[in-house]
Amino acid sequence: MKECLLSEAVLDVVAIGNAIVDVISQENDAFIASRALTKGGMQLIDAQQAEALYADMASGLEISGGSAANTLAGMAALGGKCGFIGQVADDQLGRIFAHDIRALGIRYETEVASDGPPTARCLIMVTPDAQRTMNTFLGASQFLPAAALDLDMIRSARILYLEGYLWDPEQPRAAMRDAIAAAREAGREVAFTLSDAFVIERHREDFISLIDGGMIDILFSNETEICSLAQTQDCENAIARFADKLPTLIVTRSEKGAIAIQNGTRYEVAAAPVERVIDTTGAGDLFAAGFLTGHVRGQDPTTCLTLGAIAAAEVISHYGARPEADLKELAGALLA
Amino acid sequence: MKECLLSEAVLDVVAIGNAIVDVISQENDAFIASRALTKGGMQLIDAQQAEALYADMASGLEISGGSAANTLAGMAALGGKCGFIGQVADDQLGRIFAHDIRALGIRYETEVASDGPPTARCLIMVTPDAQRTMNTFLGASQFLPAAALDLDMIRSARILYLEGYLWDPEQPRAAMRDAIAAAREAGREVAFTLSDAFVIERHREDFISLIDGGMIDILFSNETEICSLAQTQDCENAIARFADKLPTLIVTRSEKGAIAIQNGTRYEVAAAPVERVIDTTGAGDLFAAGFLTGHVRGQDPTTCLTLGAIAAAEVISHYGARPEADLKELAGALLA
Repeated sequence: MKECLLSEAVLDVVAIGNAIVDVISQENDAFIASRALTKGGMQLIDAQQAEALYADMASGLEISGGSAANTLAGMAALGGKCGFIGQVADDQLGRIFAHDIRALGIRYETEVASDGPPTARCLIMVTPDAQRTMNTFLGASQFLPAAALDLDMIRSARILYLEGYLWDPEQPRAAMRDAIAAAREAGREVAFTLSDAFVIERHREDFISLIDGGMIDILFSNETEICSLAQTQDCENAIARFADKLPTLIVTRSEKGAIAIQNGTRYEVAAAPVERVIDTTGAGDLFAAGFLTGHVRGQDPTTCLTLGAIAAAEVISHYGARPEADLKELAGALLA
Repeated sequence: MKECLLSEAVLDVVAIGNAIVDVISQENDAFIASRALTKGGMQLIDAQQAEALYADMASGLEISGGSAANTLAGMAALGGKCGFIGQVADDQLGRIFAHDIRALGIRYETEVASDGPPTARCLIMVTPDAQRTMNTFLGASQFLPAAALDLDMIRSARILYLEGYLWDPEQPRAAMRDAIAAAREAGREVAFTLSDAFVIERHREDFISLIDGGMIDILFSNETEICSLAQTQDCENAIARFADKLPTLIVTRSEKGAIAIQNGTRYEVAAAPVERVIDTTGAGDLFAAGFLTGHVRGQDPTTCLTLGAIAAAEVISHYGARPEADLKELAGALLA
């Protein structure tokens, strides 16, 4: 086992992601259609677009978000030791983000941006079918400099977890490349989430070269994303294209459950039951939280998938992408 | 009818209250006890106390609040035409508050404070029994100047609604006295909510002199508050003390329902059923919203009380003090 040669891991996971506050409102389908938004997707917007869209939105609620940060929130709730890297500005939303992530017991020491745009926010419209449409103003997040990385913290964590969304802006992309190099040099695992079909459109070559180059140990995707990456309509073809390049490939399938292909073997679980789906924001993030929690505890792939399904089911039963109920209790014997 | 002599009312209600963003977290009873907070009550805190308490709080969610503003949110959801007066600072929380209240269709034109403290916030701990403990940093709210009042708007509304919480700081108290004078001069009704037993402790004489002086047409209170005002343990004695000084006296009684005494006649309704009580924040505010909605539509006191009970039941079934479900639909035929 290569782990024997390494210094003991201090943290379970260090994640690099958007440091973002979600602004959530309930809207109808006409609102989404009339503004030519892509329902269920994420689009990047600039400060001016953010202001115009916010002016049109219904009264909302604010809750700390960010895909990778949501995953850490889930892992921390399940007992994991986590660290987060992401940049906020010196403003009220930045203080809210920092407070919330630290209050979850997550190490967060990235320096606050001294100038530049305000803290990132994601304007999320939730339609009556519980689908979310996300509009992200990246703000301070998009200027995360490579110099802000705590490489010692990255080396000290069993897994480095990277958010595909943050591959768009140049500085964080460079920082994530440095982080991958540091993690691999220290013999750590690298997990990556594909995040969104539009992000894949923009960075397909990068993502494929990371996978084919053996830089990624665990890839999280949903059906749309893995198909987009492989440029096929057929999910099985897409899986076949990448499965032997990845020690672990996860494909989440919404209400149809999830699949893991690990070292050539396929594992599958059904979705966990949900009384009423309210807001699907964070489903993938929390699935990753459950799966990684099992993974760092050395549990079998089916248990890891089941933990993912349980965490995802909790987060879609209420507004916001961070868990409200006691995930440890929901996981019960699976964590014993 | 005196209304015949007046110019037609343009708005149903204008309210003066705290312009505040709620920060809500789930805490256990030990958290409340160890910080010597009064469970179920509201205490005022300064900037330093707010910072220290926030640092200790769990990860939370932010949602626009303020007692009177919550009442307007409920009235607007029930189809009422409303205006709000309250002061925010030029910061992110201030912009969130202003956005949210305007997005509800409420007229809100109070000028933003050009200097002084940041926008008010209320740190709310919700315990597993659904009780809320509120800690308010009044910020920019407490410096609402009388000059900020839109007296024409006040004169144009059928009802002026005042939040007792805002009687504490000197400037808004003076502004509210001016507003009462303007409303009465224009022949409008004045409604007042007692807000909190501790506020009453500090301002009992003021409140009693307003009531005995015939300045208040509709008084909202709960059992604790009306007893505190009358300095008695016996709720019936307290009601008897004030009933003939007030055209309408409302006493809400949590799960026991609510009472109205109107021109000497007593009306009573049961509480509306709630599947599961999550967070009682805003129960009184939304009760007032339902009651006033019926009142401005000229409905009988029992219908007004029932509308209050329905709106209160909705808001205690989720986190936050503003309605999430469609109140019009819940009210159904009562609004027809």
